[in-house]
Formats: sequence, structure tokens, C-alpha cells
Amino acid sequence: MNKKLIFAAVAALPLSAFADEGMWTIDNFPAQRVASKYNVMIDDAWLRTAQLATTRLENGCTGSFASADGLVLTNNHCTWGCVRNLSTEERNLSDEGFMALARDEELQCPGQQISVLVNMEEVTDTVAKATAGLDDAAANDARKAELTRLESACEKNSGNTLNCEAVSLYNGGQYFIYSYKRYDDVRLVFAPELDIAAFGGDPDNFNFPRWCLDMTFLRAYEDGKPASTPNFLQWRQAGPRAKEPVFVTGHPGSTDRLLTITQLKMLRDVEYPLWLLRYAELRGRMLAWADTSPEAARAVQQRILGIENGIKVRRNLLKALQNDEMMAMKAAEEKKLRAIVEADPELKAAYGDAWRLIDDAIESYRNFYEAHLFVEFAAGFQGDLFNYARTIVRGTAEREKPNEERIRSYTDGALPGVEQGLFANRPVDKKYDKLRMTFSLDKMREWLGPDSEYVHLVLGNDSPKTLAAKLVDGSRLDVADYRKQLWEGGAAAVETSNDPMVKLALAIDNDARALRKRYENEVEAPRIRGEEMIADARFEVYGTDTYPDATFTLRVTYGAVAGWEEKGADINPFTRTSRLFERTTGERPFKLPASWIEARERVNPDTRFNFVATTDITGGNSGSPILAADGNLVGLAFDGNIHSIAGNYWFDESVNRTVGVNTAIMLEALDKVYGADHLVDELTVVN
Amino acid sequence: MNKKLIFAAVAALPLSAFADEGMWTIDNFPAQRVASKYNVMIDDAWLRTAQLATTRLENGCTGSFASADGLVLTNNHCTWGCVRNLSTEERNLSDEGFMALARDEELQCPGQQISVLVNMEEVTDTVAKATAGLDDAAANDARKAELTRLESACEKNSGNTLNCEAVSLYNGGQYFIYSYKRYDDVRLVFAPELDIAAFGGDPDNFNFPRWCLDMTFLRAYEDGKPASTPNFLQWRQAGPRAKEPVFVTGHPGSTDRLLTITQLKMLRDVEYPLWLLRYAELRGRMLAWADTSPEAARAVQQRILGIENGIKVRRNLLKALQNDEMMAMKAAEEKKLRAIVEADPELKAAYGDAWRLIDDAIESYRNFYEAHLFVEFAAGFQGDLFNYARTIVRGTAEREKPNEERIRSYTDGALPGVEQGLFANRPVDKKYDKLRMTFSLDKMREWLGPDSEYVHLVLGNDSPKTLAAKLVDGSRLDVADYRKQLWEGGAAAVETSNDPMVKLALAIDNDARALRKRYENEVEAPRIRGEEMIADARFEVYGTDTYPDATFTLRVTYGAVAGWEEKGADINPFTRTSRLFERTTGERPFKLPASWIEARERVNPDTRFNFVATTDITGGNSGSPILAADGNLVGLAFDGNIHSIAGNYWFDESVNRTVGVNTAIMLEALDKVYGADHLVDELTVVN
Repeated sequence: MNKKLIFAAVAALPLSAFADEGMWTIDNFPAQRVASKYNVMIDDAWLRTAQLATTRLENGCTGSFASADGLVLTNNHCTWGCVRNLSTEERNLSDEGFMALARDEELQCPGQQISVLVNMEEVTDTVAKATAGLDDAAANDARKAELTRLESACEKNSGNTLNCEAVSLYNGGQYFIYSYKRYDDVRLVFAPELDIAAFGGDPDNFNFPRWCLDMTFLRAYEDGKPASTPNFLQWRQAGPRAKEPVFVTGHPGSTDRLLTITQLKMLRDVEYPLWLLRYAELRGRMLAWADTSPEAARAVQQRILGIENGIKVRRNLLKALQNDEMMAMKAAEEKKLRAIVEADPELKAAYGDAWRLIDDAIESYRNFYEAHLFVEFAAGFQGDLFNYARTIVRGTAEREKPNEERIRSYTDGALPGVEQGLFANRPVDKKYDKLRMTFSLDKMREWLGPDSEYVHLVLGNDSPKTLAAKLVDGSRLDVADYRKQLWEGGAAAVETSNDPMVKLALAIDNDARALRKRYENEVEAPRIRGEEMIADARFEVYGTDTYPDATFTLRVTYGAVAGWEEKGADINPFTRTSRLFERTTGERPFKLPASWIEARERVNPDTRFNFVATTDITGGNSGSPILAADGNLVGLAFDGNIHSIAGNYWFDESVNRTVGVNTAIMLEALDKVYGADHLVDELTVVN
Repeated sequence: MNKKLIFAAVAALPLSAFADEGMWTIDNFPAQRVASKYNVMIDDAWLRTAQLATTRLENGCTGSFASADGLVLTNNHCTWGCVRNLSTEERNLSDEGFMALARDEELQCPGQQISVLVNMEEVTDTVAKATAGLDDAAANDARKAELTRLESACEKNSGNTLNCEAVSLYNGGQYFIYSYKRYDDVRLVFAPELDIAAFGGDPDNFNFPRWCLDMTFLRAYEDGKPASTPNFLQWRQAGPRAKEPVFVTGHPGSTDRLLTITQLKMLRDVEYPLWLLRYAELRGRMLAWADTSPEAARAVQQRILGIENGIKVRRNLLKALQNDEMMAMKAAEEKKLRAIVEADPELKAAYGDAWRLIDDAIESYRNFYEAHLFVEFAAGFQGDLFNYARTIVRGTAEREKPNEERIRSYTDGALPGVEQGLFANRPVDKKYDKLRMTFSLDKMREWLGPDSEYVHLVLGNDSPKTLAAKLVDGSRLDVADYRKQLWEGGAAAVETSNDPMVKLALAIDNDARALRKRYENEVEAPRIRGEEMIADARFEVYGTDTYPDATFTLRVTYGAVAGWEEKGADINPFTRTSRLFERTTGERPFKLPASWIEARERVNPDTRFNFVATTDITGGNSGSPILAADGNLVGLAFDGNIHSIAGNYWFDESVNRTVGVNTAIMLEALDKVYGADHLVDELTVVN
């Protein structure tokens, strides 16, 4: 058991003992704690600039402005979809990389959106009022309606210049409305070859030492012109110093540090094993399919890396939860809070039922988890075409309802994003779609059983492969105009459509919605109520000097550049370029692109490449700027080490590390490998 | 918690309360218990006949003699390897089925062996003497040497007419030498089409109701003529009656009912997840590869079903171990025995250390489990060609040692079987071998990491795919004569061989043997010692009216034909033929072969097809005869229901069921579908 490990929100230790733990909201950043540990003062101006220079990529990543002309630095792996969509048979941008020599060569990424958080307003009391006195299921409905209303009002208040999103923090302990400035026109500026961006591939993923140039430049456009972005980050030429305090701003996707033991066991025993079995098989299908033709290989190359990343994450999440000692520590923490609540009549009356509510919700969910997953969450119908069909069928029905009664992904606030995704001219690879659809129908039959009513309804007398072929070959949903026509035609167009994918989405929709409602009433409603109660109990018992679980909203973490000890050996926090050239084998994923082989003599072998820091990040932080206390960019977060995966449940400063690309190698590569003088010139580089 | 559940060896209940639990050895069958529960007396003559009429298929199954001329009934799925080896591009015996119209049309199954247990001799004391006073590692070596010596003496005593094998029962509580008569010439007589043999495929696997004609006839030959087998089973025309007591004889492969909690957690947290992840991916690779050509499909069709079976088994084994209540019950049982041992100074002195020994063994194994699995157990080098290479390299080295110092799979007793496997003219599908080799090298790199010394030694600068191609394309080990030449050439031939697969097996052998030795000394030796101590403690505390875990040796189980209750509904123990025809969809795996569609009007729709019984069986019992108390064959075991999988750890009579093919449908199909009059005539059918 590692003694340095501290659980979130259980800390009753002197300040100096605090680990570099926490994905803090910008309005609750523990500046005093940081000052006391690292002797640097992070003030409101610093935080405000960092906030406005940090962008959210709506496909699940983070970026940062790198110039006043909308230039955005993010990870290469955050732009794989864009790169694939822009590739053709003749030109594989993933293999070849991409560089626009002038702005008119920058290529629009279909459907890509970038947002900047400009305002946060707490609405906890308003939400509480809207749900007061209601039973759990009714409260759940009322809460959603209220959040939709608040979002709508916020957008109107901004003259519809901002996107407003409700955010639940501390598992329902607080509600906020966050307002974003959104850019819908995002273009690809520069991307290195996949072989250097993801050098080491899946074998090296989550490993360190590491040598990945996992960077891409995008550019935000407004009205067809580069956006004006006065809040951008200066780059430090040399990157960070050893032991230097650093800060990561970004949008960590989710963590599970506040879950109860029952919830953790549901993940450990049901959700992760099912996910892993499905995706291990899909990985196998994709790998074998990639061997059948160069087009197939191009279609799935990056997707395989994405799946492999997901597998590595989840098998380490599973491993973390199989650690009996850690689970016992979690259980002890839960027991302690419950004992405090039980011992105080007022606390007991207010929060005593919380854990039972959650236990009941999870027990109920276990009874229909697979059906809900395959039918409503569409794990049985994977693929671009079904996604379009579901969106069109659902969206068409939802648009006819009053805004506050809709499923929240189809509210007036959400619809512009939905439509952008639906109308974007992304190519659909029908062969790949067929592979996914065959696979997912197959898995649905496997897990629900051949005698399931859902399976009968969907498959009839067809095998998964036969049905997938009929659905995919027969569908025209790969044509953006056709999707637009259906969407604009409304219910009449949808209901009379002969498109087999639309017909499937329609046929299954009643069952899917019934499962959704069952989930909302039996699982979500009591779970949210229980979580809110536990959050409030924590605030009362432990105070508010704490941070919420990640929710893909803006957070700041702090730490320092530092290696760690692995099996008795010290890991140096920096890697250097010389070792990259020694490590290449000539075979993927350890193959260098031609540009690097050619540039070998020009590149300084001592240039620092990747580095690690103690900052507390997770998925969604990909592309995050790593900042020094002076506000300058010193690195680009792109991964965590293998120990960082358990960070989903607990932060262990002794081994949990962020992995970043050093600004030194980014500048060196732009200059010496890619000859990207125009990009280096656009940056503001300081020493 | 089901109240009817009883753990092995913990019973202190009146006789009538005993569940139909236990895979009993033939010499310790609880005839009194059966008589008291079912009012039928199983005597020694009954058991002796059943013993001699039951055969072991050395590829992991069971069969029974069906005539005095060596005819053997077993499962179709036990003969998939044979059927595949005998198929050609022109003639797919799996799709088409096979029937020899005369004996000279019967086709030899390459490498297939069948054995009959003829004698059992207890040697517990001899083994104890050989290991007395030695430390665990030395005792482990001495035990192996003694067992090899005993086997060797037994074979000499029989004038080398019998094969003698050491057997450890009750996890080391008893040691036996079992003697077998072995048939090396086994031929295919009749096999129905895969579509009816495995109707419902993976979706229906472990399900019931069920409709599978999972039967095959083989024939044992001696000196080129059908073997004389006077001990065979008569078939009952009508199959079993509802509630009738029935008995299954056969060779259950393994169960884990006596494992400690630490051992169960090792399976739950390490071994099953790793296996499942690997095989889910391999399944995916094979499924996608099968789509690339008819030959590929033929090569992997049955292998995919085999892997899917393994996945279903292990995911339900995992689910069983994730059942906290059952684990708590197991833990309570262990705690109870330990408390009894601790409370008695003599027991404590003799057995008190047992659990600590096993805990230490497992903790040690966790440190090198992956390396041991991939390098020594060859999970990193899957495929026929590497198996041949390993056998040649290891066997050649081992043959030069004195018999008692060899690895036990290369003793004088084992070598004839090794050579038969090595020299058998089985076709090797090089493309499929390449797929497996690519996959397994890939997984080795994934799980050991790209910086592992083993991975460096094996891959060098190659990718898994490149190396697999070099190894498989360059190897001549697919040629039986070449294998024979190497084997007979001995160490000189092996060491100078240029065959890349032989070179790989040689290159890795030192590391593999070192891991083997580490496993034997650090894991196996203390584990066996601990298990022996626990077994002895159990005998002293609970007595010997109990049965050992399965060990792929002959066992008899008892029970009755009975359905069970599933979600409030009673499952009828019999299915009928009419429903088979209703259930077909025309698409695999619910497609009927042409023979059945054509015969539909001739087949009696009321004929009973499959049935379930409460008998306690597991994998290895596939192909087992299901006998009535009168000694007649009434069915053919081919599966268990889904609840039977948890039977690996505990037997729950309320839901655990054997699934069998009714003799009624086997006879009807032979007569009405296949016109196999000559086979029906060879059987002895009674009413």
C-alpha cells in the first residue's frame, strides 16, 4: 500500500502533505496550496488568460491558441478523424502528413467544432427548487426540463452568440450553466506523419520513456477568415526545467473518484468485462480486415489505434479495481462517511438513505444492462449509417415536442450541433460500416441470446452478416444531401422512407425508448438523488476545499516535472532525440517516416523530446497545454503513464504521471524536419 | 443463495439430502447413496461393464463402444479435427457429412487415439516414501521421477501391451497408476453435417431447449482390422423416461472445486481476463479472415466454434467467481477447515502451513505469469509448425537423459504418443498458421511489453507479421517426412537445421526452460505440497466419502432426467423434432442441411431430440454415454446448460444440467435421414 496516496475529499492533513491531486475548477483553484508547496502564486489574471487560451475540441479533446490568428495546437491523435476524412485513395494524409504552405491551402475538417469557455454561472439553488418535493423519477424529469430551460435562457441572453451547457459538478452537489464561444469552421494546418506522431503505437501507448511528436495545428475560422484570438499562449523555446512547477488546463472527460463501492463493482464485474470482450474481438476483426486491401488498411489504421487505446485503458481500469487493498481502502472511506452520517440524527435524516438508493439503482440496472446497452445505447447497431438513422428518427420526433420535454441531446441549444454533424460532408466507408454492423448485430445476438425479443425483431430470419449487408448496401444515408432532405422533410419523410437503415431505427425506436425510460426511472433518478445526497454530506462533513470528478469541462491541475521510481530504478523525466533514432526498427510501429530519416543529421540529438510531470489528468486532456508558472507553454499533454489509468479512481502522486511533448522538439521538428518557417514565424517564441 | 447447493467434501447431512453431485471414481462409487435416493442398485458388474465400454479419446473427449467390432459413439464436435484433416478443397466433410457404406470406406483419422481403462493401482504410500524429508522443490522433482519409474514398471509388467499413467486424485491426496489399452488406428465411420450436429451454433451453445445431432461414429482398428470389443453398450430405442435415474461415465477434464480462495482469485483476476482478451481478439481475426475465401472459411469454421465455446465457458466461469455470495461461501468453508486445523495441535502441526504455502506460490506466480504463459506455455508461438518445432527440440534433448530425469511428457511411456502425433500425416494450413503466429507474437509483445528481453530475442527488428511470415513460409515442418528425419537425426540434425521454426524453438528454449524450472520450484512445488496437506486434512476431518476434482480420468456420475426452473418457468427436459423444423431460419447457424429438409416428411415430428439430466459433468465428458440403471445406452452427453459452467467450482442441483442427444433421434436420423441401415444393423437396439 502506497503511503503517499490520498483520496479525494478525505484529506484532513497539513497543507504541505497534499499530493499534486485534483482536476480543479477555474473558480476554485487552490492557489494557496500551490504557493505553499511550489512557491509560485497563480493569480486570477493567470487563470483568466489560461481559460481563454484553452479550447475544447468537441470530439473529446483539448487545444490551445498558439497565435492571434486562431492557430490551435492539439494532439495529432485528436485529429485522426479529420485526417481520415480528408484523405483519398491517392493521398493518405495519415501516412504522408500534411502541411498547408499558405492559409488558402488549409483544409476544412468536416464537422469539427472548437469551443472556448467564456462564462460560468451557478444554478444549484434554481435546480433544487425545481425538483423540491418530487419523487426521484419525477425529480429526474423536472431537473432535465429545468436545465434545458436555463440553457435556453442563457443563449437568448447572449443574443444567441454563445452556446450554453448545463454542468453537474460533485455528482450533483453543484449545478452550473457554462457559456462557450463556438467555432464551427476548423481547418487542418499541419499534421506530422502517423509514424512519428504515434511512434511506438499501441506497444508504447501509456509507456514512458517515449518519443511521440503527437502534435497537430488546426485553425479556427470565423466568416471564412482566421478567427481573431488575442488570448493565445507564448511558447518557451527550451521547454520545462526538471522539477519546475507546471500546470495543465483542459477538459478531462470523466473520472470515477466519487463512486460508491456498489458502483465500482458494477464496473468491475459487468461493464468493463463486456466492453473488453466486445472490443478485443472488434480489434481482431479490424486487424484481419486491414490485411485484405490498402483501402481497408487506410480506413481502420487509426481506428485500430483508438480501440487499442481503449482496451489498454479498460484493462488497467479493471486491474485497478481488482486490487483488493485499494478496494478495501475505498470501502473504508465509504464506511467512515456513512458512520459519521449515521451518528448524527440530522445528517442521517438528510443523507442516510443515499447508499441504499444507489445500491437499488445498480441492482435494477444489472437486470437489463445488456438490453439497454445493445438496443438504446446502440451497441447492437454500430456504424456511421445507423448513427445518422437514429439521429434523424429521434431528432425528427423530438423536434415536434416542446423544448423542455425533449431528450436533452435534441434541445434547441443542441440542435445546431446535431445538424452540423448530420449535414457535414464526411465520407462513409460502407465496407467498414458493414464490418461494424455485422459485428454489433452478432454481439447483440450473443449477449441477449437468439430468443430475445429484440433480436427477433431486428434479425428476423437473417444472420447478422446478411442483415448488415442489406442495411448498409441499401442505405443512402452516406449522402449528406439525402440526410438533409430526410431531416427537413420531418416525420412524414422519415415514416415513409424506404431506406432500410431508417426503417430499422424506426422499428426499434419504441423498444429503445422504453429501455431509456426504464433506465431513467429505475437507475438514473435514484442514482442521481443518492449521489446528490452523498455530495451534500461530503460538503457538510469535509468542507468545500475539494474538486469534482471530471465532466469534460474546464479544469486546472498543478504539479512538477518529475520522473518516478519503477521497480527500484529512477525514470528520468526527459527523453532525448538521439534515443528515438536508436529505437527505430524500420517496422511499424517503430518505423520512422522518410522525413525524419532524411533529417537525422540536421536534428540535434540532445533535444528533449517527451517528458513527464506529476499533474493529475485523464482522457479529454489530450491536447492540453502544459504551462509554466510564468504562463508560457512548455509542453503538450498527450498521454499518461500506465499508472495514470488507475487515476480514474484515485491519485497516487508517487507514480501517476502526465506525458507531454516538449516545446523544444516541436520547434526543432517544425524547423529542421518540416521546414515550416511560416508556422514558427506565426508563433511567439520566448527563451 | 440457493439452499440446495452443497460444497464438495463439506457434507454432514443425512443421505436423502445429498444432491446429485460428484464425479466419482469407479472404485469409490456411492452405490448406497444412489440406492437410497433412486431405489436402484448399481453393482460392481455394472460398473465394470461401463468401465470397459467407455473409451477415452486422447484429444480430450469420451466415447462408448457401440458394437463388438470396435464401433465407437462420440460427439461430432470431438471429431472436428479428424473431419478437417480428411477434407479437401473438393470435398468438405464438415459441410457434407460423411458415411462409409462399407468398412473399406472408413477413413483413418490422422493421429487419433482411443484408450480404455483396464486397471487402477494405488501408489500413494510409494510416492510419499519417495518424497519424505525433502524440501518442496526437491520433493517435486523426486515425485515426478518416482511417477515416471512407476509408469515404466507398470508398462514392463504388462509386457508393453498397456499404457500406464500416473494420476493424482484429491489434489495429491492419493496417487494411482492407471493402465489403458490403447488403439492407435481410429477411423471415421459416420458424421452428420455440421449444420445439424451443431444446430444453433455458438448462440445456442450451453443453451437448452436444444436440437443438436452431435454424434459421430468412429471405429477402433487393431492390426488393420476392426478391433474386437466384447464390452459394448446396447441402445434403448425410446431413450430415457422423465425422472428416470441415469448415469454418465466418462473422462471429465478438470474442475476446481477444491481450490483455495487465493487460487480462485488468481483465476478471476489474472488468468481468465487474459485468456478472454486474447481469444476474443483471435476470434475476431478468424471471423474476418474466414470471409476472405472459401478455403479460409473451411479452415476455421469449426475452430471458431471451438474458440467461441471456450469464450462462453470462461466468461461464465468469470461470472461465477464474481458472485460475491458464492465466494463468501467458499471463503467460509475454507475458514471453517482452517479453524478446525488450528484448534487441534496435531492437525495444526501437520497441515497448518498449507494455505500459506499456496498463498506464497500464487503470489510468486503473479510476478512472472505472463512470461511463463507466453514463453514456456508457448502462448506467444501458437500454431502447428511451432508445436512440431518445440516437440522436436525438446524431445530430442530429453531423449538423451535418463528416463526418470526427463520432462514427464517425454518419458519412455509418453514417447510413442509423441511420435504418433509428430509423424501423423495431418495437413498444415500455412495461411492459418501464419494468422495464429502473427496473433500470438503480437500478444506476446503487447503483454510482455516491447522492451521485454524475450520480445527482443524473438522479434529483433521484425514486426510480428513480418517474423510470422518468415517463420511459416520458410518452414518445412508441414512435411511429415521432414519431421521424422529431424526427430530421428537427433541433436545433431536439430542443431544444424536451417528451418526457421526449429531455430526459433532452439533460440528460446533456454529461457523457456528457465521459466519452467522457476515455475516448478516457486509455484508448483509449494502448491502441490500445500494441496496434499489440505487433502489429507480433509480426509481426517470429513472422511473419505467424497470425490476428487476431475483429472481427465474415468468417473461415474448419477442423477435423473429432469428439467429445471428458469425465471419462474419450468423447462421441459425433452425437446421434440417438430420444433427443430420450426426453429430453422435458413441461415447459419440455424440452417438445416439438405438431407434434413428432404427427409422432413419421413421424420416423426414427435421423436424426442435432446434432453437434460441432473448428472454432474464437465468438459471432457463430451461424447460420454448416458446409461440407464439397466446398463443400456439412452443418450449421448454433448453439453451442459449455462448453469453447468459454474459447476467448475460448485454443483447446484437446482439448475446444473447435462444436455444429451436422445438415442431415439439418433436411431431415427440414421434410419430416416441417412439411410444408414448397415449401422443400425450393427447396433444392438432394445426396447
